[in-house]
Amino acid sequence: MAIITLTSDFGHRDAYAAIVKASILGLDPTISIIDISHEIEAANIAHGAFVLNSAYRNFPGNTVHIVAVDSLGGENSKIIAAEIEGHFFIGADNGLFSLISEREAENVIIIEQEIPSTFPARDSMAAAAVNLSAGALLEELGEEYSKMKKFFKRIAKANKEEIIGHVAHIDNYGNLITNIKQNDFEFLVEGKKYIIGIGREQLDYINKSTNEVEPGDCFVLFNHLGVLEIGIKNGHAAQLLGMQYDSQVWIKFS
Amino acid sequence: MAIITLTSDFGHRDAYAAIVKASILGLDPTISIIDISHEIEAANIAHGAFVLNSAYRNFPGNTVHIVAVDSLGGENSKIIAAEIEGHFFIGADNGLFSLISEREAENVIIIEQEIPSTFPARDSMAAAAVNLSAGALLEELGEEYSKMKKFFKRIAKANKEEIIGHVAHIDNYGNLITNIKQNDFEFLVEGKKYIIGIGREQLDYINKSTNEVEPGDCFVLFNHLGVLEIGIKNGHAAQLLGMQYDSQVWIKFS
Amino acid sequence: MAIITLTSDFGHRDAYAAIVKASILGLDPTISIIDISHEIEAANIAHGAFVLNSAYRNFPGNTVHIVAVDSLGGENSKIIAAEIEGHFFIGADNGLFSLISEREAENVIIIEQEIPSTFPARDSMAAAAVNLSAGALLEELGEEYSKMKKFFKRIAKANKEEIIGHVAHIDNYGNLITNIKQNDFEFLVEGKKYIIGIGREQLDYINKSTNEVEPGDCFVLFNHLGVLEIGIKNGHAAQLLGMQYDSQVWIKFS
Repeated sequence: MAIITLTSDFGHRDAYAAIVKASILGLDPTISIIDISHEIEAANIAHGAFVLNSAYRNFPGNTVHIVAVDSLGGENSKIIAAEIEGHFFIGADNGLFSLISEREAENVIIIEQEIPSTFPARDSMAAAAVNLSAGALLEELGEEYSKMKKFFKRIAKANKEEIIGHVAHIDNYGNLITNIKQNDFEFLVEGKKYIIGIGREQLDYINKSTNEVEPGDCFVLFNHLGVLEIGIKNGHAAQLLGMQYDSQVWIKFS
Repeated sequence: MAIITLTSDFGHRDAYAAIVKASILGLDPTISIIDISHEIEAANIAHGAFVLNSAYRNFPGNTVHIVAVDSLGGENSKIIAAEIEGHFFIGADNGLFSLISEREAENVIIIEQEIPSTFPARDSMAAAAVNLSAGALLEELGEEYSKMKKFFKRIAKANKEEIIGHVAHIDNYGNLITNIKQNDFEFLVEGKKYIIGIGREQLDYINKSTNEVEPGDCFVLFNHLGVLEIGIKNGHAAQLLGMQYDSQVWIKFS
Repeated sequence: MAIITLTSDFGHRDAYAAIVKASILGLDPTISIIDISHEIEAANIAHGAFVLNSAYRNFPGNTVHIVAVDSLGGENSKIIAAEIEGHFFIGADNGLFSLISEREAENVIIIEQEIPSTFPARDSMAAAAVNLSAGALLEELGEEYSKMKKFFKRIAKANKEEIIGHVAHIDNYGNLITNIKQNDFEFLVEGKKYIIGIGREQLDYINKSTNEVEPGDCFVLFNHLGVLEIGIKNGHAAQLLGMQYDSQVWIKFS
């Protein structure tokens, strides 16, 4: 049973996600459709990329991921498909796919659209996804495309004295998920002391779990994505620490 | 694999939608259940009708649609089923079904309820939906009903000089979806100049896609439903233009 | 086709629920996954218990329910599984399972975790759920556990003169769902007159359905869960009556 996932900024008040599902099931009723999120902020590429990045590797290889974020369609808007880390992605050429992996997208193609559409997730992405999940090759779906829009992913700067990173996402609990990698930290710390700076807060520990702190206290840990995450137990860290998307978080070694 | 869709004002904080799904799967575990929306505003018939209308024709013919909006049940509340445009609809007799098509509902019946229920979506709609999706005829589910509640759908007024329409829905992006039809506009415009009025804003163009305008600018296009839609690229048109549900939108020809 | 349900405080902005689904489907792609709710308030055991309690008995016996509320994992955090009323439950040992039934949990076990995880719903609950749905016995999943955390469920006090209960949940419509049971009321009322007190409001009737009252008026009925529910037709009772979670509701007989 093939899986197609959906990630979008459609929200839940409208029928947009259901319409895409209807298109998919009309072509192949046996497909399992899994919603990754439909609450991506409208046209927020960074939010969409973070959520998709956090999720897709948990699905089986060759899973097809439809990404309808900032994908309003129209004559000049390109809908592309690409292979990244053994998964297939279909969405607008808006740079989002350049932010979900450190590897280059492979076999990028433009999906041919007969007529311009104001709803490409329904009118072209759904059919392309069903074809891919049935075993079609990317090159069968459209012309090769070498100009995929790319953004540079914000990467933490690390040297022997410090790591300077940023908040990459604030999750539903208000936890701050940074771009500071566990690997980098472990390589640099070498038994040294360190201080972690989060706004005006400074901490000198990293927890193994949130159970080590009391409700209302700050925890810092390397999470399931292998990056530094800061939270307040039973509290909303972003609000309580005055942090937002892209706020700086640093670690100084001494 | 038969499909049953759900449209409701249940929201996501409670288990109501899951309970209806449990009832359906308890009767037939092979059915695919697709959520159209559970974020219809409480008891808002117009919102429910707009969302259902925008979605149902994308599903295969004979799909069964459960509509639990303003359906609190009880002794005097009738649960009805009807056929509209080759689809089956089950819900309260509250007028919603009269707003989702220009065609008359056919074969309207009252679903028999053994005991009055405060949760008819679970207690009678689920079983009726499973029966219909298994091929039962509407007349097997209950008595014919000739008094289905009807509302008149707000229709844009059109003549050679102008079209006067209204905002029929504000979607998740804040876009204004009107009841002005592309067909009517194209029939009347005949190469004439025109001005479109949206609150204090006046525009003299219709876009083919949102790509033609810059972020922050207003776009106007005929959308995937074939009606006039107004938005602000990367902005919330309803807030920025001071428009709400039922606000007037007009087109004057000259 | 086995069913696994999910109840969590994950919300919809992140991919957490989808990641758990990916883990489940990676192990057994034929399982039907039903979301009960992902909008439980963060770490709110009472909210999670109410919603789960209202839903699970509608599913077939032996259904497996994953409950990821206040389940942040870590070294000291126990993930348990138990049988309650013929259903299987998997979640953190945080007391939630003691609030969903009047019967004792049976066969409680601790699920072995090879390494501590910050995301136990993905890393241990999903696999345990798939095993249980495939027919594994609880005792095959881990060691017996006799110290399951227990809370005392708030129960209405009833005697011949009065019943004193509380608001157990405020639903999406703003309706007040209490812990006053229809059985207790019917046993005690014996044809006597009664007054129901809800904040400053006093009523002397119980409706059979919301249809008996006009929009804007208060209805009181015994709902599909067999408990007293108070609402305002087409209004938000909690806001309009100034009631909240745990506010007192009483019935005095005379």
